[in-house]
Amino acid sequence: MIIAKVIGKVVATVKDPGFEGKKLTVVHAHVIKDGQLIPGQTMLIANDDLGAGEGDLVVVTQGSSARMAPTMKNCATDAVVIALIDRIDAGGRVVFRKT
Amino acid sequence: MIIAKVIGKVVATVKDPGFEGKKLTVVHAHVIKDGQLIPGQTMLIANDDLGAGEGDLVVVTQGSSARMAPTMKNCATDAVVIALIDRIDAGGRVVFRKT
Amino acid sequence: MIIAKVIGKVVATVKDPGFEGKKLTVVHAHVIKDGQLIPGQTMLIANDDLGAGEGDLVVVTQGSSARMAPTMKNCATDAVVIALIDRIDAGGRVVFRKT
Amino acid sequence: MIIAKVIGKVVATVKDPGFEGKKLTVVHAHVIKDGQLIPGQTMLIANDDLGAGEGDLVVVTQGSSARMAPTMKNCATDAVVIALIDRIDAGGRVVFRKT
Amino acid sequence: MIIAKVIGKVVATVKDPGFEGKKLTVVHAHVIKDGQLIPGQTMLIANDDLGAGEGDLVVVTQGSSARMAPTMKNCATDAVVIALIDRIDAGGRVVFRKT
Repeated sequence: MIIAKVIGKVVATVKDPGFEGKKLTVVHAHVIKDGQLIPGQTMLIANDDLGAGEGDLVVVTQGSSARMAPTMKNCATDAVVIALIDRIDAGGRVVFRKT
Repeated sequence: MIIAKVIGKVVATVKDPGFEGKKLTVVHAHVIKDGQLIPGQTMLIANDDLGAGEGDLVVVTQGSSARMAPTMKNCATDAVVIALIDRIDAGGRVVFRKT
Repeated sequence: MIIAKVIGKVVATVKDPGFEGKKLTVVHAHVIKDGQLIPGQTMLIANDDLGAGEGDLVVVTQGSSARMAPTMKNCATDAVVIALIDRIDAGGRVVFRKT
Repeated sequence: MIIAKVIGKVVATVKDPGFEGKKLTVVHAHVIKDGQLIPGQTMLIANDDLGAGEGDLVVVTQGSSARMAPTMKNCATDAVVIALIDRIDAGGRVVFRKT
Repeated sequence: MIIAKVIGKVVATVKDPGFEGKKLTVVHAHVIKDGQLIPGQTMLIANDDLGAGEGDLVVVTQGSSARMAPTMKNCATDAVVIALIDRIDAGGRVVFRKT
């Protein structure tokens, strides 16, 4: 999985029927460098049924595993938010804490 | 999934029988940077049964999930257009709106 | 899928029995930039049962989808040639035409 | 699989039910260069049921294979620690030995 | 699949039971550039049941396809050696020949 920040959303009327009523969030991968959480290289569209809002830090699973999320069976998704991050500890420090 | 722009198409007479009658579009991944939608690093061939035309911005799913699209069962595809994008919101702004 | 050029082949006597009698081609990913088809970053070994020859431009599918090709069921392949490209159109121009 | 160092952990209250009670470790990919083990480009969140602690060097498997680990069946994970590394030999030298 | 050189091995006592008795080799991806075989960017841990030794050039399959190798069913591996390379031909030349 990757750490990612929710930065926006995609609106689409014409879509695969399996995505009807499903939220398509834009997420930006983040990495930890020198004890700081910084933006990474990857930007993805991920489904979310956990209620992530813009600015939230989340964990995103990718590939066939995305379809193992309870509400995503048989959906053609390849990326799903599986956790809303409260805190990240690294190198004995708190790198991120939800406010 | 990724945001991508349809930039062309591939014509092939000799092909795997599962691709008979299927459109092979060339798509170019796009990312959001400083509130702007800009071309990214990845270029893919994706199947499309939603009627995407050249210049359209779309969402593309990859891997085994591509075969979950209704018309792609048993097809050896690894990338399929699953939505035609109407609008992208990010950072409280409209980053893209279909015209 | 990706656009790739067949640039060579691999010969191997000791191999997984599922690859017995199967061609292992070396393919080099290509991308379109400024209306030109140019070599990309990725080099792969792909199976081919469509008769691709050195110098041919092909479409390669990757991952579990490669095993959906008719002759690759149960083979441990993760990349297969699924089309021999005749023509690529992009930006209203013919970017590639087989000669 | 990849070689990775456990550098931290993620705490999340709101999550996919399949991750209830499962450890989410932050791991940093490592590579061998000039006979030295050095940090690589990739940072991942991986599940761990082998008891890896911060600073441990581990082997991480990715994709659908992560769900083949005994305790991860039906979990939407795409990365799991499958071994705690005792030693790495490369180029006739011991590149890493657990202390 | 990718071309890779076996450069070492990983020793691990604590591991997923599915890896018991299985060799974990360290392999370094190689690519062909200007008719020469050169080291690439990727380093992986791959299973091997074909008897590859350090220095051998091999073909490695990745993802769920790795589990299609006869001895890897139900193993949480995502990379397996599927061939020991005897020769690589590219651009009308012999790029590699096993000695």
